[in-house]
Amino acid sequence: MFKKAIGQSYKAGLPPGSLVHVGELKSDTTEVTVCEYDKDFYRENKTSEPEECLSLLEKEAVVVWVNLDGLADIEMLQRIGDFFNLHRLTLEDILNNEQRPRQEAYENYTYVVLKALVYNDDQNRIDTEQVSIVIGGNYVFSACERKTELFDTLRKRLASDKSGIRKKGADYLAYAIMDIVVDGYFPVLEKVSGHLENLEELLLEKPEEKNLHAVHRLKREMLGMRQAVWPLREALIGLEKSDSIFIQTDNAFHLRDVYSHTVQIIETAEIYREILSGLLEIYLSSVNNRLNEVMKILTIFAAIFIPLTLISGIYGMNFAYMPELNWRYGYPFSLGLMAAVAIFMLLYFRRKKWF
Amino acid sequence: MFKKAIGQSYKAGLPPGSLVHVGELKSDTTEVTVCEYDKDFYRENKTSEPEECLSLLEKEAVVVWVNLDGLADIEMLQRIGDFFNLHRLTLEDILNNEQRPRQEAYENYTYVVLKALVYNDDQNRIDTEQVSIVIGGNYVFSACERKTELFDTLRKRLASDKSGIRKKGADYLAYAIMDIVVDGYFPVLEKVSGHLENLEELLLEKPEEKNLHAVHRLKREMLGMRQAVWPLREALIGLEKSDSIFIQTDNAFHLRDVYSHTVQIIETAEIYREILSGLLEIYLSSVNNRLNEVMKILTIFAAIFIPLTLISGIYGMNFAYMPELNWRYGYPFSLGLMAAVAIFMLLYFRRKKWF
Amino acid sequence: MFKKAIGQSYKAGLPPGSLVHVGELKSDTTEVTVCEYDKDFYRENKTSEPEECLSLLEKEAVVVWVNLDGLADIEMLQRIGDFFNLHRLTLEDILNNEQRPRQEAYENYTYVVLKALVYNDDQNRIDTEQVSIVIGGNYVFSACERKTELFDTLRKRLASDKSGIRKKGADYLAYAIMDIVVDGYFPVLEKVSGHLENLEELLLEKPEEKNLHAVHRLKREMLGMRQAVWPLREALIGLEKSDSIFIQTDNAFHLRDVYSHTVQIIETAEIYREILSGLLEIYLSSVNNRLNEVMKILTIFAAIFIPLTLISGIYGMNFAYMPELNWRYGYPFSLGLMAAVAIFMLLYFRRKKWF
Amino acid sequence: MFKKAIGQSYKAGLPPGSLVHVGELKSDTTEVTVCEYDKDFYRENKTSEPEECLSLLEKEAVVVWVNLDGLADIEMLQRIGDFFNLHRLTLEDILNNEQRPRQEAYENYTYVVLKALVYNDDQNRIDTEQVSIVIGGNYVFSACERKTELFDTLRKRLASDKSGIRKKGADYLAYAIMDIVVDGYFPVLEKVSGHLENLEELLLEKPEEKNLHAVHRLKREMLGMRQAVWPLREALIGLEKSDSIFIQTDNAFHLRDVYSHTVQIIETAEIYREILSGLLEIYLSSVNNRLNEVMKILTIFAAIFIPLTLISGIYGMNFAYMPELNWRYGYPFSLGLMAAVAIFMLLYFRRKKWF
Amino acid sequence: MFKKAIGQSYKAGLPPGSLVHVGELKSDTTEVTVCEYDKDFYRENKTSEPEECLSLLEKEAVVVWVNLDGLADIEMLQRIGDFFNLHRLTLEDILNNEQRPRQEAYENYTYVVLKALVYNDDQNRIDTEQVSIVIGGNYVFSACERKTELFDTLRKRLASDKSGIRKKGADYLAYAIMDIVVDGYFPVLEKVSGHLENLEELLLEKPEEKNLHAVHRLKREMLGMRQAVWPLREALIGLEKSDSIFIQTDNAFHLRDVYSHTVQIIETAEIYREILSGLLEIYLSSVNNRLNEVMKILTIFAAIFIPLTLISGIYGMNFAYMPELNWRYGYPFSLGLMAAVAIFMLLYFRRKKWF
Repeated sequence: MFKKAIGQSYKAGLPPGSLVHVGELKSDTTEVTVCEYDKDFYRENKTSEPEECLSLLEKEAVVVWVNLDGLADIEMLQRIGDFFNLHRLTLEDILNNEQRPRQEAYENYTYVVLKALVYNDDQNRIDTEQVSIVIGGNYVFSACERKTELFDTLRKRLASDKSGIRKKGADYLAYAIMDIVVDGYFPVLEKVSGHLENLEELLLEKPEEKNLHAVHRLKREMLGMRQAVWPLREALIGLEKSDSIFIQTDNAFHLRDVYSHTVQIIETAEIYREILSGLLEIYLSSVNNRLNEVMKILTIFAAIFIPLTLISGIYGMNFAYMPELNWRYGYPFSLGLMAAVAIFMLLYFRRKKWF
Repeated sequence: MFKKAIGQSYKAGLPPGSLVHVGELKSDTTEVTVCEYDKDFYRENKTSEPEECLSLLEKEAVVVWVNLDGLADIEMLQRIGDFFNLHRLTLEDILNNEQRPRQEAYENYTYVVLKALVYNDDQNRIDTEQVSIVIGGNYVFSACERKTELFDTLRKRLASDKSGIRKKGADYLAYAIMDIVVDGYFPVLEKVSGHLENLEELLLEKPEEKNLHAVHRLKREMLGMRQAVWPLREALIGLEKSDSIFIQTDNAFHLRDVYSHTVQIIETAEIYREILSGLLEIYLSSVNNRLNEVMKILTIFAAIFIPLTLISGIYGMNFAYMPELNWRYGYPFSLGLMAAVAIFMLLYFRRKKWF
Repeated sequence: MFKKAIGQSYKAGLPPGSLVHVGELKSDTTEVTVCEYDKDFYRENKTSEPEECLSLLEKEAVVVWVNLDGLADIEMLQRIGDFFNLHRLTLEDILNNEQRPRQEAYENYTYVVLKALVYNDDQNRIDTEQVSIVIGGNYVFSACERKTELFDTLRKRLASDKSGIRKKGADYLAYAIMDIVVDGYFPVLEKVSGHLENLEELLLEKPEEKNLHAVHRLKREMLGMRQAVWPLREALIGLEKSDSIFIQTDNAFHLRDVYSHTVQIIETAEIYREILSGLLEIYLSSVNNRLNEVMKILTIFAAIFIPLTLISGIYGMNFAYMPELNWRYGYPFSLGLMAAVAIFMLLYFRRKKWF
Repeated sequence: MFKKAIGQSYKAGLPPGSLVHVGELKSDTTEVTVCEYDKDFYRENKTSEPEECLSLLEKEAVVVWVNLDGLADIEMLQRIGDFFNLHRLTLEDILNNEQRPRQEAYENYTYVVLKALVYNDDQNRIDTEQVSIVIGGNYVFSACERKTELFDTLRKRLASDKSGIRKKGADYLAYAIMDIVVDGYFPVLEKVSGHLENLEELLLEKPEEKNLHAVHRLKREMLGMRQAVWPLREALIGLEKSDSIFIQTDNAFHLRDVYSHTVQIIETAEIYREILSGLLEIYLSSVNNRLNEVMKILTIFAAIFIPLTLISGIYGMNFAYMPELNWRYGYPFSLGLMAAVAIFMLLYFRRKKWF
Repeated sequence: MFKKAIGQSYKAGLPPGSLVHVGELKSDTTEVTVCEYDKDFYRENKTSEPEECLSLLEKEAVVVWVNLDGLADIEMLQRIGDFFNLHRLTLEDILNNEQRPRQEAYENYTYVVLKALVYNDDQNRIDTEQVSIVIGGNYVFSACERKTELFDTLRKRLASDKSGIRKKGADYLAYAIMDIVVDGYFPVLEKVSGHLENLEELLLEKPEEKNLHAVHRLKREMLGMRQAVWPLREALIGLEKSDSIFIQTDNAFHLRDVYSHTVQIIETAEIYREILSGLLEIYLSSVNNRLNEVMKILTIFAAIFIPLTLISGIYGMNFAYMPELNWRYGYPFSLGLMAAVAIFMLLYFRRKKWF
């Protein structure tokens, strides 16, 4: 996640406004799904001629949702952009998958970028995928970086209309899309939470360097996540405050709901980062403690054996007159002396509570 | 407390607006208590048909307080919601015990979520319980996660009406409920304070790793507490500033009182966190100091005995011509030499203030 | 100071509004001093019937200052409260000595709480005492936690009226009281400053653990001080901005003066905290340095004596054919070899700048 | 980059308003390029008499872009300044290459300073070059510190006019210049990112002090970069909010685009700094770990060999009665005893997982 | 600088408003310089009767600048204060050299306090000197703590009037004074910068404790500098925003210039502090690295010589049957064995890259 944070997101020298892919192209197909509905009917079809089936756009009561899965086909994007009369900058932004989450009010539509998060289990990494949403009078145009199942349940809800979603306008549809993307953050955080608890146990149990590196990596993922989610907060505030005619006040409650979830995500991610910092401290103090242990063992060994060695050295001296050497029990005496010293030292360290 | 911070708080894919429990269901019963009063009468009954006894709601002078203990019975919640004409999002939020504390102004009522804190003595942990409050024209609807004794004294005050509480409106009742919940934070902080002082003494006395882990755990509890209390601040400001017709200006003083307590709680919790960080530093430096002690002992032993061993080694050499070996007092001389060296070294370390 | 930060400051369950002491009761007496003055006269008397001598209150030109030293007599407070028609919450707040500094505008008066700081030399601790001030049209009612000499000079100034203070209104009197309390912070900070410099010298000279604990304690005192002074800043801004009829614009200059002092105190306290953090770093690096020294001594000893011991060991071997053993000057030669090795090692460590 | 941050950026004592170079003069030539265009024609020429070819300035539809490469020729700057009627302070600011990025609205033009960043591969350093832009009614005057190729593609775009840039006004030209400068930050950050990953690998693999110094240097570069880019954020906000008649609302989208890039740059740079801090922690813990390793090896050696030495010492004692000495297999027995002790110690440390 | 931060800046008990020196009195002389000018004439004289030569004050076109060098003569200050009709609080503030930089709008003048910084080379310290400026309709009254050369060039500019300064009003003069004071911060920062780079080199080369203390001291100086400059930022914003009739809009550009410099100073000082913190980290890791080096040397010595000592010990044993002892080449064999072990150990440590 981190690596792409800056990626190739520049095209210095090119005229601002040329349609090229910026950042990694994650899919080489492009699939257009058009859903049309009002409270009485629902039609959904995959097409390569989106213009044709957009004829209903003129009827005000009908909501049209055009979704693009995969951005490989720049020409198709251009056609849709022309159809909805989108600003060239918007099309560029859709093709640049390194946008900061934000909203921008244009004259005839509102443009929202946000990031879907996907936990990559194989590499223990959080991947981001950019979701662009264009909200017009009675249409929503959304674009994802690759084929995704995120919106399948939403289409089912539209088809069955149990919750009366079809009675509501395009802005409610846009809200539902944002809600799905933001709700998708929770399972990612939960994976992180599990990973975190795992690491915590490992570190407290045996503080190995590789666990430290895992903490470091997780911290970086949280930094990347903050970068992906934090700006969304401002964008949602901006969306609510804007007097955009495309957002009806009725749906302000819903927006605030998404906002509240976003803030909760951010706060939780911050808390995870603080806990990770705490883990580093724990790790460092564990390493210090082990050093202490090692040094204690060394000291105990040295302090016990060095005096004994001295005793053996003394009785190994070659003086002509050393009375002990000729004692009958000189040898056992010297061994006893050594044992006494050793026991004394052991008691000394025991009293110091070293073991 | 921390673990649940993120819990299962998502229902990605479900239509926004379906009534399901999100998060742990803490009680499998649901108890409805209805209190009705005006300045002259007070009636309180537990019921399973709240609609019936709510007939007084039409009289403006009467205040009705419906309290739900336990959220197991979704249907009951739905009935009460229908009766008071609550927005579907509000009902969802009541069922989701992982809400951020906040207030939301709806057209016909104001919705407030806050967290009661309970210190779990067994596990040395702070538990949160969500309290939802709906403030309408002349009614208050409150919902707790499980049967609680928090509101018993409030009901007694209503029954006796010594402080004239029955003369005041529904908004004053809502204030009283919030006041009780926030006042409940103080004993929790006090427990933390006791625990903290305990830890401090332990750490300063003998810096063991398990105390360090206790500091780490307490820090996490404070992070969780911040997450539970911090947003309440904004919510209370919002409540005071909102021109909600359900909050009378007379009670602004009371709201500010609750606000002031909340800020005090937050500041105290922050100070506890800083003290905990200070404890970690103290701990680390204690560990370092002990390492120093260990190394000093080793060094003193080595520095004293190694020279002595050398002396004994020298007089253990087998040269044919070593005059000392044949001295009459060579042996005592060598022992004396050793003693002299040892005393000299001891004095040297004494002067260095090593012991 | 810290311990009381949270104290017993809750009375969960009690009706909000009952008059009880919250926090430690610091004095068991209550003394009422009433001062009345206008530009022509000044009367001051200690009384137990404050109502009687308050008859002048009706004359607009007269300023009445009622001061309460000690809060033991709740009934007296109640009487004064009734007389000035104070809100029940105000009386409660006066009795609760764990209030956050703040100001609150009521209909007929403005209520200000602040903390006087006292440096407790015996225990090297900063104590706080709460000062409550009620500013009405032509009266000031102030309440202190115990008998204090803070206001003696103010009374003298009123009696002599050299600076024309009697010509000014009740709001100027209130300002003078706040000024005295805030000016009292400076000598406390100065004591802290002295203590800090003391500690700094001690730590730089000989880094002992008990000095570290003193740093830790002082840091806690600064945290407590921040908690006591920081909110005053907001309160003073609020006081200036409020269109309270009890604060005349003429005195805004004076308020800003107090504000400016408060900010200065806060900034200085923050700087002290940063210096204290710096001291901890210095201490830790000193401990590390000493460890380095210890290890160097050990290493020098070991590195010099272990080779010598080896030499003596070699010439202590019992091989039948060891030519050196039979040399005439074998023994001096071996001693010379040892000396040469020792000198070489010493030079080596000297070149490494180890001593 | 850092060194120049403060440089000679003062001229204390000189009258404010004298035209002198402040900071390093990076080029000793001055080259004037004038471009004139409207939607139908484009003329570009290098000149030393800019006044002459500026005659078109009076025609409103024509946009004139005067670019100065190198600031050595103060007189030329003065002439251009007189021609466009620029404030003396603006000319001074152009000559002072240590300006903070900012925008200032004058009566007849808007002045913008920003910093181009150049990655200096030789010295692994980020260099800044100041770009000043004056935006008037139908002209843009830009000044760079030295001859740069930054604007070559822009001139080509103007010449070919494929994107219709010539139809737009002077403010769009100014935007295009800012866009180019800000887009130039991305490749710099990418170099930093590569350098950072490089360092990370090096540090995790073998934590050498010189890598630590590289981290330190990179951190300083990021600090310098923050200082160069951070204030641009405010400046761009100011530019958008200002009711400057020189910025048309149509181009607000473009400004916001530049703003969005700037914020992205700042956030990424902050994340790099946090990662660098994390690297320091990793490094320190690696150093501690290596210390642990070293100590373990020492301890293992000492703990194995010291007991063996004791055994050899014991059988080197010269007691008259030591039965083992006369055993037939005393010598192999003693060697076997040593081997047994050594194996025992090795197993002990193996069980402690030391190797 | 730090020590005086809090100094004797209190006069608790004194009536607010008495004219006494607060803080250190830095000069025991007082020199009054009066400059009068309009666009046609300029008169400057040192006087002890400032009132006399102020007769021109009534002519609106004339600007009068009264400068006080040294504050010993309180009576003179009082006379000037009376003449200009200054508020008593202003006079007090001028005499108190521990003011926070700020601006205050009075009815008939604006009062600005700021701090001049002087680098004290002898003690490697930043000293502050307070400069008070009173800006009235057509006069400026400035007061410095001691005789200073700061304003000499300004007087020369007024005398020669090359830059047309005499055509501008009193507010421009005040701006010029502030500009001089703020421009004086740059050389101070440059000294700090030089000192910092010096320290950096020293610390990277040989990390001695005294350099660490120098870092600590420099950090304190930066804290003090922040305290002196930071509040100026607010003051300048306040000055620009105030609708003070004494600041003409024409000069807003100049004020913004001073503001921009102040912000630059603050940002640079912050960056220095961060670099100093980085230096501490570098230092600590250097200390750790040296510890590593020391331990490696010890370990290498111990690991090489202890096995050799064992060998010599073995052949020093007194067993009756030790075949090697009677070998013809037993002695050289044992020495060769030792050499082999030593070489093996050396190779081992070489492969571990220990030296």
